[in-house]
Formats: sequence, C-alpha cells, structure tokens
Amino acid sequence: MVLEKINQVGDIKQIPPEEYDTLAEEIRHFLVEKISRSGGHLASNLGVVELTMALHLCFDFPKDKVVWDVGHQSYTHKLLTGRKSGFDELRKYGGMSGFPKRKESDCDCFDTGHSSTSISAGIGLVAARDLQDGDEHVISVIGDGALTGGMAYEALNNASRLKRNFIIILNDNNMSIAENVGGMSEYLNGLRTNEAYTNFKTGVEQSLSRIPGGSHLANQLKKTKSGIKQLFIPGMLFENMGITYLGPVDGHDIGKLQDILNKAKKVKGAVLVHVLTRKGNGYVPAERHPARFHGAEPFDIETGLPLNKKKKANYQDVFSTCMVKLGQRNEKVVAITAAMPDGTGLKRFKNIYPDRFFDVGIAEGHAVTFAAGLAAGGMRPIFAVYSSFLQRAYDQVLHDVCIQNLPVVFAIDRAGLVGSDGETHQGIFDLSYLSSIPNMHIMAPKNKWELSDMLKYAVEFDGPIALRYPRGEAYDGLKEYRRPVEYGKSEVIYEEEDIALLAVGNMVKIAEQVRKNLKEIGYSCTLVNARFVKPIDTEVLDMLSADHKLLVTMEENVRSGGYGEKVMDYVVEQELPVKLLNISLPDEYVEHGNVALLYEEVGIDAQTVTKRIIEKYITCRKEQK
Amino acid sequence: MVLEKINQVGDIKQIPPEEYDTLAEEIRHFLVEKISRSGGHLASNLGVVELTMALHLCFDFPKDKVVWDVGHQSYTHKLLTGRKSGFDELRKYGGMSGFPKRKESDCDCFDTGHSSTSISAGIGLVAARDLQDGDEHVISVIGDGALTGGMAYEALNNASRLKRNFIIILNDNNMSIAENVGGMSEYLNGLRTNEAYTNFKTGVEQSLSRIPGGSHLANQLKKTKSGIKQLFIPGMLFENMGITYLGPVDGHDIGKLQDILNKAKKVKGAVLVHVLTRKGNGYVPAERHPARFHGAEPFDIETGLPLNKKKKANYQDVFSTCMVKLGQRNEKVVAITAAMPDGTGLKRFKNIYPDRFFDVGIAEGHAVTFAAGLAAGGMRPIFAVYSSFLQRAYDQVLHDVCIQNLPVVFAIDRAGLVGSDGETHQGIFDLSYLSSIPNMHIMAPKNKWELSDMLKYAVEFDGPIALRYPRGEAYDGLKEYRRPVEYGKSEVIYEEEDIALLAVGNMVKIAEQVRKNLKEIGYSCTLVNARFVKPIDTEVLDMLSADHKLLVTMEENVRSGGYGEKVMDYVVEQELPVKLLNISLPDEYVEHGNVALLYEEVGIDAQTVTKRIIEKYITCRKEQK
Repeated sequence: MVLEKINQVGDIKQIPPEEYDTLAEEIRHFLVEKISRSGGHLASNLGVVELTMALHLCFDFPKDKVVWDVGHQSYTHKLLTGRKSGFDELRKYGGMSGFPKRKESDCDCFDTGHSSTSISAGIGLVAARDLQDGDEHVISVIGDGALTGGMAYEALNNASRLKRNFIIILNDNNMSIAENVGGMSEYLNGLRTNEAYTNFKTGVEQSLSRIPGGSHLANQLKKTKSGIKQLFIPGMLFENMGITYLGPVDGHDIGKLQDILNKAKKVKGAVLVHVLTRKGNGYVPAERHPARFHGAEPFDIETGLPLNKKKKANYQDVFSTCMVKLGQRNEKVVAITAAMPDGTGLKRFKNIYPDRFFDVGIAEGHAVTFAAGLAAGGMRPIFAVYSSFLQRAYDQVLHDVCIQNLPVVFAIDRAGLVGSDGETHQGIFDLSYLSSIPNMHIMAPKNKWELSDMLKYAVEFDGPIALRYPRGEAYDGLKEYRRPVEYGKSEVIYEEEDIALLAVGNMVKIAEQVRKNLKEIGYSCTLVNARFVKPIDTEVLDMLSADHKLLVTMEENVRSGGYGEKVMDYVVEQELPVKLLNISLPDEYVEHGNVALLYEEVGIDAQTVTKRIIEKYITCRKEQK
Repeated sequence: MVLEKINQVGDIKQIPPEEYDTLAEEIRHFLVEKISRSGGHLASNLGVVELTMALHLCFDFPKDKVVWDVGHQSYTHKLLTGRKSGFDELRKYGGMSGFPKRKESDCDCFDTGHSSTSISAGIGLVAARDLQDGDEHVISVIGDGALTGGMAYEALNNASRLKRNFIIILNDNNMSIAENVGGMSEYLNGLRTNEAYTNFKTGVEQSLSRIPGGSHLANQLKKTKSGIKQLFIPGMLFENMGITYLGPVDGHDIGKLQDILNKAKKVKGAVLVHVLTRKGNGYVPAERHPARFHGAEPFDIETGLPLNKKKKANYQDVFSTCMVKLGQRNEKVVAITAAMPDGTGLKRFKNIYPDRFFDVGIAEGHAVTFAAGLAAGGMRPIFAVYSSFLQRAYDQVLHDVCIQNLPVVFAIDRAGLVGSDGETHQGIFDLSYLSSIPNMHIMAPKNKWELSDMLKYAVEFDGPIALRYPRGEAYDGLKEYRRPVEYGKSEVIYEEEDIALLAVGNMVKIAEQVRKNLKEIGYSCTLVNARFVKPIDTEVLDMLSADHKLLVTMEENVRSGGYGEKVMDYVVEQELPVKLLNISLPDEYVEHGNVALLYEEVGIDAQTVTKRIIEKYITCRKEQK
C-alpha cells in the first residue's frame, strides 16, 4: 500500500512519481470505503484526488495556504495532512469535520462551508502576506458552480489589483450540486470544448503581418492593458477582468497538473488555472449520479444504493408534492431555487412546469430580488432555500421584498439543526433574522400535513411570508389536529392548566414527549403549537396566562430575537401574571453530529426540557406559598 | 419655458425635437435650483438628464417599466411623470422621496435604494411579463459603480437565458460615489477609450478571407454560440456572458440615445446598452466635485458651497482622526471600505497609508470575507460600513468572521435614523442582526470621545467586534465621563434610585434630557450608558434592580432582537424584582424626513419618552400601595 506511507503533511513528496497513479487509486478506494460507512460528500472528493495530490507535490503546507471553496471537497487534503484516522469518526459528534477547520489542523488555513468565499478569503491572506513581506503561496480552489455566486465575482474584480502571486484554481466539473446554469457556465463550456479558439489564434497570429497595417495594430494592442492576447486566447473573460488565465488542463493527469501549477507559481499577480475534473471520478455509481453522491448517506459499495432504506416521507417530499398541486391550481405560482432543485424537492415541479421553474445558480441574493420582481409583475413566487443559505440574502429580503410588502413565499428548508454538516449549515438563525424585518410573516408547521396547509395559506397570502421546516423525515403524528391555518393564530392541542408548552414547528413533537413525561409525574400541562412566530398569537398568551403558572416556549433557534423573546416581550409589557421559561439554542455555533445527540448537547431534547421545566415549576409553587 | 409643457407622463412626446436641448437645459436648471434649497442627490441626476429624456421618448410609461438601480438618479424621471411640484417637499417628511417608490407613482415599478438590484428585479419583471404574454418593455438602468456588486453579476449570469427583449442600460460615468475600482472598471475604461478595437475589427474582418483557412474558421466560429463577433467587438465580456452589447454611445446626445434605444428594443434576449455619461454634467461645481455633490446639503448655486456651515465635528471626522492615529501606532491595522472612502471618513487614512487601505467597490459581502482573510493572516482589519449596507453581508459576518472568531472590527456608520434617504437607508436593524450571531460583540459610544476610546479598544480586542454610531454631528456632552472601556461593562453616569435609564449610544443624549424632565417634576433617576449591547452588563442589572422600581431601556433600533429584549430576557430569567419599559423603534420601516421629526414620529424623542416613563412609573407605584 502506497497510502500507508502517507502519515503526515509532506509525506507525499517522498513517493516516487511512478506510484502516483496507484496512490490516487488507493485514495479513491479509501474514500469510497470510508464514506460508504459514515456517509459524507463523495462525488466532489473523488473529483479532486489528483488535483489535491498535485497541490501537495507543488506546494509546502502549512507554510503555503490553500482555501477550499465550500470545503466539502477537502477529504484528500485531510488524508494527506495526517488525518487518515479521523475518517473513522468523520462528521460524527466530536469527530473530524467534513469541512476544513482551522482548529483541526494548521494545514487548514480558513474555514469554509458556504459557497463562493474562497477568492475573497484568499485575497485577504495575500494582502496580509504582502504587508508582512511573507513569501508563502496562497491558493484558492473554487468550483465552477461556486463561480455563479456574486461574491466570487466581487473578489475576481479585486484580484486584478494584486501585484504578487495569487493562484485561483477553477475546479471545473460542469456542475453545481445539480447541473450548472447561466451565461458563465455556457462560457466555460465554450472554453472546454471549443478547439476553434486555439486553431483560430494560431491562424490569425500567423497572418497578422499580412494584414495591411496589421503588425502596427498588433504592436499597438500589445501595449494596451487589454492586450492582444485577450483577443485570441481562451479565458479572455478572466483576462478582461485583469487576471492571467492558464489552461484548460486535464484535472486527472497529475503530471500535467504539476506542470501548470509550477507555471502558475511564477505569475505576478492573480492567475486562474482552469482545471477540468469529473465529479465522482473512478467510482461508477458516483460518476453516473453525482447529485445523489453529493452528500451521501451510508451506501452499499457494490450497488451504490443507500444502506438504510427510507421509511417515511421527508418534509422535502411533502413540499415536492404540494408544489406540484399548487402549480396546477394556480398558474401564477412560480418556483425558484438557488442551485438546489434536488435538495429542496423542486425537481418534480421543474419537470412538470419548466417555464415556471427557475434555477438561478448559487445566487441567493439575486434569487430573492428576482422573486421580488416576479411578485411586482403579478406572479406568486416561492423561493425554496436552505435556512443557512438564506442568510446570504438578508438584505434582499429586507430591502427588496419587505419594504414593498411583496407576496413572496420563502420555503425555508433545513431549518433547525441539520446534523453532520455542522456549524456552517445549521439553520438556527432564521427566526431571528427574519423577525427583525418589518412586514415579514413567519410560520412553522408541526407535521407534514401542516406543511402542506401552510404552503397553501402562504401562496394566497398578500405579503412576504416564510415557513420553516427541518431536514429529513416529516413528522406524521398529531394527524387529527388540522384546524385551518388562520392569520397569526396558534393551535391549542391539549388544554389543561398550570404549565403551558408553546412549541414552534418541529419542537411540537418534542413538546408532546415532554408533556407525557410531565403527566406521568402528575403535572397538568397544556400543549400549544405556535404556528406563527411573527406575528405571535397574543390572544392565546392572554388566555394561557389566566390559568397557567408557567409558560414554556420551545424553539430550534438561537435565543436572541427568537420566538421565546417575542413571547416574553409581550408578557412583560402586558404584565401578565405568569412565569416564563425559554427553551432555545445557546448563543453558540453548534458543531456536526447526529441530530438526536446534538439535541441533548444543546439541551432541547425531551428529557432535558422536562427536567428544566420541573426545576422552574418548583420555584413557581414555592413563591405562591 | 419648454418645461412648463411637461405636466404628466408622455407630455415629452409632444415637444418638437429642436426643443430637446432647451428642455434638457431647463431640467438641469430646475434640478440645481431645487436641490440647492432642499439638498439631495445632484451629480448623479445631472448625469442622466438626456438619458431619461430619451427613455421617455422611446418608451411608453407606465406600460413599459424602468428599474433605476440605487434610484437616487430618478429625479428627471419624476419630473417627466407629473411630479414637478413634489420637488418643493423633496426628501421632507411626508413629501416626495428621493428614490423611486411604487406608492408614489405607477411610473415607478420597483423601489430601489441599495446598489446592484436592478437587473435581478428587471429579470423578474421580464419573466412575469413572458409568463403572462405581456408585450411591455423592461429596462434596468445600472451605473458602472453598481456593476462592482456581485448581485449584478449573478443577475447578468441569469439574463443570458432570456428569450425575449430585456434592456440593460449601463450608465457609465466611470465612478461610484468615489472613483471606481477593480478589474471591471479597467475593462470598461478599455471599452471607453480604445479606438484600436474598432480599427482592428475592421482590419481583421476585411482580411479574414486572406488568411489560409480563414473564411472556413470564420464560418465555424459564427456557428458556435461564442461566435466570431465576440472576438472582434467591444463588450465581449458581456457577449461572453451571453448578452448582446451595444455601444458605447454619448449619453448626452439625445438623438444618438434614441437611435440606440430603438435598436435595443428589437434585440431578442438581453441587450446591454453602454451609455457614457458625466456626473454633474452642466453644473460646473458638480462636474468638478462629483463626490461632494453626490448627496448634497443645501448650497449656494453661484459658488457651490454649502449654505449651512458645519459647526461641530461629525462622528465621521472623529473616526477619521482616530484611524490615522491607530494606523500610526499599530502597523497591523488595515482599513476597508465598500466604495465609501469619503462618507466613512477613511480618506485621510487612505492618503497616509495607501498600502493598508482597501476600497473593494460596492461589494460588502466580499469586503467582510476579505477582512476575515486579512485577520486570519495576522492583520487587524477595520471595515467601515454603513449600517444598512452591512445587511448585505450578514452571512459573511456570521459564516466567515464569527465562526472562526476572527478579530475583525466593524465600524458601523449611519446607525440609527439617517433622515432624508428614508426606508432603505435607516440603520435600525444592526443591533438585531448582529446580536443573533455567536461570538459577536457590539458596542455603541455615547459621545465623540467614547467613539475614539471604543475604536482603540476594538483594535486590541481578540475577536469580532462592532461599534455603531450615527450619521452627522458628534455629541460632545458628558465629556467628564470617560472611564476606560471594560469588557461587557456599562457606565453609570448618574446614580440615584426609583427609575433607571439604560441608553444605547446616541440615546444617552436623549436620556440626559429625559432625566432632566423627570428631575424637574421630582423623580429620582439613574442614567446608565449601556456601552455594550452584546454581551449586556448583567452586573449593572443586578445592582439597579435592587434599588429601582423601573428600568427603561432606550435604543435607536427595532425592538425584535435589540438591547431592550436582551435586558428583559435577563431580568425575567433571573426574576429580578423590577419593572421594565422598552423604548425602541416600532416594527415598521421609517420613511424619509428630518431626523428630529422622525424621532417624534417613532416616539423616541425626549418628550414622548418622558411621558411614557411617567405613565409606566405610576402603575409601578399603584401596585406597591
């Protein structure tokens, strides 16, 4: 085994070149084997095995610095920097992260997770280096998908001013998680395939002297900043932006990669190396279904099929079905995704109503303002987006949708703790950031039927409205509680006295369990499904405070600006005679791990909540005596 | 007067062409005259007089739709759509807005304010039109400055897919508010000036047939999507993105503008019309000092000098001086602006430490992640940014700075009510959106000396930290209260009993007045300068609750997620024996107008606050009896 010789950073440099291909094969085997058990990002990692090896052959880490855009493709980098054993605990609580983490290794120089940040961060590292007279290399590795994000362009626009070396590697696999979209993608397609450029370049260069005045013009052009080579080489879009373009190069040929990287090192200023890779390369099921193997659950290596069969519908399945129905019922309904047609469940809508479906690329800011334009033009847009990615569009929600009070529906997926992706992907801020925005309305369904009811409600609603629901299996309990959704109204599920649980969305399920626990030891306990987080249901609070001693709010969101604080604010302002207990997430980032475990860790599991309620309730009773 | 004939939309079409120039002159005269009295955006509006006239000659508003990026250049549009009389109350409370507003006219189809939104909104309107089989034209007018914003690029990337007409007008004046930056700007510069392109194009086209195999290659290229014309025409960056490019054209020549707009109407798909304009055109002081006349205070038309002389230093002046000192003292200090070197007060730092100053363009997202990169590389970056613009970078603050706990300083300018710019520019959300983020720290200074002290503290602080201060004149009262800034500690200014005012930043000044009012009628009143909004000072709350009946929190921020709710949360959780009154902004957007008037309108002026405290305090006393 060549891989056995790799135990720390730099070890790869001791491997003789004739063993590179074997090593690449062993790495692929290792990754498939480990990820088939732990789950994780497979397709993207298989795509960059040779590229990562070449980087480690050409550069000196940790002195040199590589920023991995998004970061889920950093597994080989982890493998080559002494973290082989970490793969046994990959993405598990307390184990190795699936993303680069500064706290995990000094070879990880910048944490990533969301798309399109690597060039900005890289320019920052370059500027810091240059101000401190350092001589390390800085490399940002960015996918073509991430290049649809505006931040990458903002950064490219600034890269042109750098005087010293900065290497941007465009890892071009012609995909985001799904197929790529837009003008840039087509442009890259042209670079990839258009032999004519190269032929034409040669042809015209040879004939320049034959053109009347041609050599004079050529010289003139060479002197200008825009320069002759922009006219005749591929990559002129980048060259136009002031960035040297090298490539394209086969991203699975280590020798060629080494050559081009060594060339890139010598460029003064920013240089973009265009590397062509294939997602899932070397593992047939992943090559065929890269989207399915983007973030994979544990699977059978032989067949590529998931090991754990899905038993129940996900919230995404429910959303998917409901969207198709809504599309049929109302031709004003249009759907928008930012590069997540599969993840969000919009694919069926896309197939049935292609004209009313828009995948805008990894461009949440644009998506929201585009939705605002659609709404201003009379349509009913639904933007399906992950909670943590909508953070990118906070201003657009506030400034383009809500000031004009436009009827845009935000279907906020992956709200709450998402599990193994960790800090960067937890959807635990949306209740706070959306609550701060005037005219916004926020709902959360308790179970799968309510998701459907709320979505129908939202599409008819004349203003900005969000509904947030978690990743994964849809709760199918409490089926019999299905009163119509009413503006700003909560749903009282069990009405008793003493203690009232007010739970938001997914927490209703936990609250049910808490109530059972409390009943078992003789407490009387009301259960309310909050339904609306903004506006809160003040009537239900007035009512509950009359015959309850303690109101417990429960939400899977940080405390500051969440549902609990809103309830508290009302109760305190009205001086309602009731005590309050706020169950929410602590003011901390929550790392990766199994969701059930994370619930315990942050104290929102049924057992911890029960315990906290009992403690609080005892003080209520004491005071009354 | 030709202008007298313009009383409603469409009237301009009755004007004979030979009077266009006179009309343009009269409009300029009108604008200079009105803005010299009311204040407002002058330079940008003088730049688009002819462009706006040409749009109104070539299109039918309100059927056709124009989205003005940023929107402060829409004065001539307002003038030509029946809002001439509105200029007497321009930007005054209850009067005409300085930005497009749907509620103001049906000729304003989309509200704007922040940069780079117009193409996204335009594509939304186009998609809505196409789905509803409409035949109106949609035009987005975007400045070259706004093109440094990533959202514009995200939108351009999507524009390439449009099948029917969409017109993007690039209003290229070679400036943001200040000079433009970056690769795109240099590229546009090339288009503007490089005659060689055109000459070369002709030369090569003529000689194509003479190249061996040239005509064959040419034909081949014509068939490909990337097409031959990309190689030989200006604007190939846009053409590469799949967008037809027309221009450049003189933006002050109405005839030429009409010709090119009529040509643009016929293009299938997205077309970009490159229009060259001059900021401040026709009014010499504004031509010479476009930045000064960006958003002007009332001025003398003769000299161009402001009518009201500045008496006291602004917070921006204090920041400016302090930054220079910090730069001298600590060579790790670097400063970043997103196209606001003048507004933020960074210009002096820029002049003295050009290597440590970065203007990244209108690119707040990039700015923050770039700052994170600088911090990860060992520097101490200070990002000076307006409160409402930092909204654009919520995710980058959360995801790139705070997860890694990097020492980035956010100097948040224009926090609180900003006045005449209105809804889009009020800085009233930052305490909320920043509070939701783990690891973030937030301060606000009570006066000019404290701004300086806090900035020094922030630069030494080992983690993300924000300080927020308002637009305009720096408070110079309470000079004698200057205890050192201590982590998480408030400053007790006057210590009495019964009522305690806890005021954030600028509100300390109001609180002083409130205290005077209360003292006059015999109340005992403590005044605390909060200093830290995150973390709050819980010790001071414990202390105050011991000998006060009522705690009053005062902040210039929306209520949800603000300082008051944090204080309330602590008091309720600890069950401290004290009543609370939360003075903050209502859950509404606040329109334009004089800041003092807006204070009254939203109820945070000294008189209203005094009244509310008395009302609340009476109930406290009643209950005690």
